[in-house]
Amino acid sequence: MDHWKRGAPGEAGAFKSSHPPKPSAKELKRLRVRRHFLDAAKTLILTDGLDQLSTKRIGEMAGYSYATIYNYFENYNELVCEAVEELALECGEFVTESLADFPQAGVKDRVLELARLMVLWNTENVNRYYPFLSTQVDFSYFFARDGEHFFHPAYRLLLEELSRLDLETLEMSQEDLATLTDILAYVFHSKLHFFIRYGVPRTQVELLDEVCREVSFLLGRLG
Amino acid sequence: MDHWKRGAPGEAGAFKSSHPPKPSAKELKRLRVRRHFLDAAKTLILTDGLDQLSTKRIGEMAGYSYATIYNYFENYNELVCEAVEELALECGEFVTESLADFPQAGVKDRVLELARLMVLWNTENVNRYYPFLSTQVDFSYFFARDGEHFFHPAYRLLLEELSRLDLETLEMSQEDLATLTDILAYVFHSKLHFFIRYGVPRTQVELLDEVCREVSFLLGRLG
Repeated sequence: MDHWKRGAPGEAGAFKSSHPPKPSAKELKRLRVRRHFLDAAKTLILTDGLDQLSTKRIGEMAGYSYATIYNYFENYNELVCEAVEELALECGEFVTESLADFPQAGVKDRVLELARLMVLWNTENVNRYYPFLSTQVDFSYFFARDGEHFFHPAYRLLLEELSRLDLETLEMSQEDLATLTDILAYVFHSKLHFFIRYGVPRTQVELLDEVCREVSFLLGRLG
Repeated sequence: MDHWKRGAPGEAGAFKSSHPPKPSAKELKRLRVRRHFLDAAKTLILTDGLDQLSTKRIGEMAGYSYATIYNYFENYNELVCEAVEELALECGEFVTESLADFPQAGVKDRVLELARLMVLWNTENVNRYYPFLSTQVDFSYFFARDGEHFFHPAYRLLLEELSRLDLETLEMSQEDLATLTDILAYVFHSKLHFFIRYGVPRTQVELLDEVCREVSFLLGRLG
């Protein structure tokens, strides 16, 4: 669960060991300035959408010259990717906290609720999920940084819930469990894609209904 | 099955009735010039990818000034959408023709083969599916043109195959059938998205294996 094990994303390197060295004043300043840029980028993505984002606007909001960004980030794509990762973590936190309060203990009820929360969060403000659809973001940044591809934290939460299924009774293998998790993730991803990009279905209520029906169908067919 | 009922896409208006009026010389010229632009756009999308496409390059290849495009298309997005629709139709034709030659009559075997063909076609050249992922294309063009959203022809082919399932024996409703079709479509779409945009999994062989496993899992759970 790599995206969770790290501290704040983008600052992982500085705090990796269990006894992190005290960061120098210079390093603290670097992290602080990066934070200003990241917060500005996140605010702008959430309010106006990723397509309206620019170094100029980020600089203005953060209170620095746009050129300063390149002293703190390798390039614009790094800044965007780090901001987008934090938005995904916020979604993961919302789902985790809401599920902790969810009284149902049954796997199917909890997975349905997870699906509902995931779709709810990302459609209350569609700017939250849009970056994962944008072909303007180069996600290979994460592979270069971590040696593995980015995955949305909701995926691991889903896998955790499904891991409580009684595989023996359901005549499912561990591979089947992974396959089911993947298919559910495709449902979330595609539904959000079609809703955000094509306006299908037309309302959030219809979308939630459809996702609920699809997830119920998948879980209902398990036995 | 609207995308199939029409004649050549983009020329639907001219041939709509069952006894189409003979097109005028002016109309024939208009269609011919549009055809040059569409063919140029398709060739450029397939060879260099949609991101490299521009009115300038289309004009050069079609042998017209780029400004001429605006005499034949409302805007650049219309030209791109019409070209992309034709690419989807070519995919549909490939799948239809290949399935016609496929000797297996069982629904599950045929759906597995359909999945394999769909993924094969769109990954032999990833430029074929990329336009459906690009956030630079405004697909609301189709809704404005047809009063309904664009859907990929493979969707209808899938629904046709699945309609041969014995719903009663499987204890499935018509709504379940539609849900299953949608979920399979999400598998294709998401797998192609992650493969083309993130390079996951790394090879076409692995991708085909995974899609095959996922489709088998879904069909296997029907009973």
